[in-house]
Amino acid sequence: MTYVVGLMSGTSLDGVDIALLDITEPDGHVSTKLIDFETVSFQASIVDEIRQSLSMERSDSRLICSLNFKLGVLFAECVKMICSKNGISASELGVIGSHGQTIFHQPEQVGDFAASTLQIGEPAVIAYETGATVVSNFRTMDMAAGGQGAPLVPFTELLLYRDPKKNRLLQNIGGIGNVTVLPHAATLDQVFAFDTGPGNMIIDDLMQRLFNRGYDESGEIAESGTVNQALLAECMKNPFIKAPIPKSTGRELFGKEYTDHIFTTYSHLPAEDLIATMTMFTARTIVSNYEQFVFPKMTIDEVIVSGGGSYNKTLLRYLAELLDGKCAVLTQEDIGYSSDAKEAVAFGLLGYETLHRRPSNVPNATGAREHVILGNVTYPPLKY
Amino acid sequence: MTYVVGLMSGTSLDGVDIALLDITEPDGHVSTKLIDFETVSFQASIVDEIRQSLSMERSDSRLICSLNFKLGVLFAECVKMICSKNGISASELGVIGSHGQTIFHQPEQVGDFAASTLQIGEPAVIAYETGATVVSNFRTMDMAAGGQGAPLVPFTELLLYRDPKKNRLLQNIGGIGNVTVLPHAATLDQVFAFDTGPGNMIIDDLMQRLFNRGYDESGEIAESGTVNQALLAECMKNPFIKAPIPKSTGRELFGKEYTDHIFTTYSHLPAEDLIATMTMFTARTIVSNYEQFVFPKMTIDEVIVSGGGSYNKTLLRYLAELLDGKCAVLTQEDIGYSSDAKEAVAFGLLGYETLHRRPSNVPNATGAREHVILGNVTYPPLKY
Repeated sequence: MTYVVGLMSGTSLDGVDIALLDITEPDGHVSTKLIDFETVSFQASIVDEIRQSLSMERSDSRLICSLNFKLGVLFAECVKMICSKNGISASELGVIGSHGQTIFHQPEQVGDFAASTLQIGEPAVIAYETGATVVSNFRTMDMAAGGQGAPLVPFTELLLYRDPKKNRLLQNIGGIGNVTVLPHAATLDQVFAFDTGPGNMIIDDLMQRLFNRGYDESGEIAESGTVNQALLAECMKNPFIKAPIPKSTGRELFGKEYTDHIFTTYSHLPAEDLIATMTMFTARTIVSNYEQFVFPKMTIDEVIVSGGGSYNKTLLRYLAELLDGKCAVLTQEDIGYSSDAKEAVAFGLLGYETLHRRPSNVPNATGAREHVILGNVTYPPLKY
Repeated sequence: MTYVVGLMSGTSLDGVDIALLDITEPDGHVSTKLIDFETVSFQASIVDEIRQSLSMERSDSRLICSLNFKLGVLFAECVKMICSKNGISASELGVIGSHGQTIFHQPEQVGDFAASTLQIGEPAVIAYETGATVVSNFRTMDMAAGGQGAPLVPFTELLLYRDPKKNRLLQNIGGIGNVTVLPHAATLDQVFAFDTGPGNMIIDDLMQRLFNRGYDESGEIAESGTVNQALLAECMKNPFIKAPIPKSTGRELFGKEYTDHIFTTYSHLPAEDLIATMTMFTARTIVSNYEQFVFPKMTIDEVIVSGGGSYNKTLLRYLAELLDGKCAVLTQEDIGYSSDAKEAVAFGLLGYETLHRRPSNVPNATGAREHVILGNVTYPPLKY
């Protein structure tokens, strides 16, 4: 039995996700129990500094150097908080897996700039302040091996969600949608993953413009609208949907410019219909990708949805309707996991794997040439 | 027997120093043999990018992210080159200790900017490309423990230069002068270190202005001049010389403004006399510090000089005259070591210590609260 903490702070700058795990390894099979999960918001001053460090105009080496240490202190405080809440000393942790804050991520070379990635949140500070061993900087080794440094969750999905009999799809619906295909009793070589297209990105952007809200809570606005078939048909012509796998996308395809176009061209439609149509668009891109790249290879038993989109009941209903009984549509919570905690759990588990010197990227998902041991190990002072 | 490579690239941007070592540990005593040493110059384009990343106006997160990976590739090439030259496969190395290129180092908090340090040269790239385990980012853990992150060489000086019977001073004369005090059979607690004042900084600056040369080769210009006692007396009033230890200094005290003052106020003196006087000034600050902080505590047998200043024969003669037979004045080469290789050797050895999970900072030298294990460990792919 090993206590492990996983730390994740994403590009949304919501704060730090902290998962406290108990990992056991009876007969060589890693088993993970989520003991506790917390999200700690960033102070406004830290959000400012992160935004500054993300800006090409306002970032510089001094800011990045200083913020790396400040985030280390903050991450250490998060670890100590969740340990203290659960009556554990942080120095009892077997390992802390810390993703860090991404300051830059460029999976391909662009002009003079090398393919590279940079996460900050100094592991030496975390290790010193907590008394625990830290594994951090997970994405760099996958990129050194020619991969895109993302997604890194598929390996942990294999450990956590592999079923001896069921073929499962792990569909994450964040800003972008991405799926991990997990055949029953799969080996690492049989796992593959790709982006399916938009997740909540277009819906959220339109909700902001039309309703001054960050997202469509429970999918209630979509529920009250009607899908416009002309708009949906236009959207479905996007070449990304039929592009071969592996594939990945982001704001460059379904970001502000995309929404601008819909917002102006279809401004005559009722606001609710726009939301309903974009919700259906997300569902259709997901199912279309399954039909092209998954169903011809295997029958799927369960689609397990995570991410903010898993709380959108209309989106889940659309998905179930389109799948037409081919497979069950479940949420993380339906099978006893936490959607919110998923990434923090993943980085705790990746830290555990690296501590045991085991490789944990999935080349079919990242495009890396080989399995590699992710991240680097920082030791606490010996007094612990 | 373990092959180890140490990599160092300093703020002078001369290039990468590469030391290939053979480390043995018979009866628990670490013994280091320098097999080979090379310096590889940086390409002009890399020097440009490093300068850009050192500039607050021109650095940004994208540049630092990209340069971190480019330097990783370059460092890996250096390792492979020295291994191939010596008939060794890089994947046979027990460890690579890589200092990295310092992009920012701020030992104390300044305004909103945290005390912090940042070295780049991605260890994942070095480990992947060479097939060897890499230890890097040595300075951060000492700073996490409240230290200044420098100097880190004293621990390796203890391992390499400790004598069972002789009390030794290791005097480095780079831009700044610094000394490590190494009593016979010393334990870590008995070692201390501090900056003595200017090294070659003022001499080099004046050589550039007066003779259009980078430095006073062998001390020949100083040799042809006469020490001006009035100027020397004024210089010796500098409060740093009598400041209590531990103390450290840099360009803020003996940099361009300092030389400007001498250059304008003493412009009537022959150029050779200015050089001779500043050479004597360096020698006097060193000996004055010994008289205040070392000689009252112990008799010193040997002063072992390293750094560019060890090639300045006039400076060594001045030192010997001022010490007046109290102790022998030797160079690294006199005792079978290489002055040029000293820092690269140090980081190879520090990497070796971290690989064995042994602490290697010297709190008396850095001001850290305790002994800590420096740096983080990055593993190569398992195929090696």
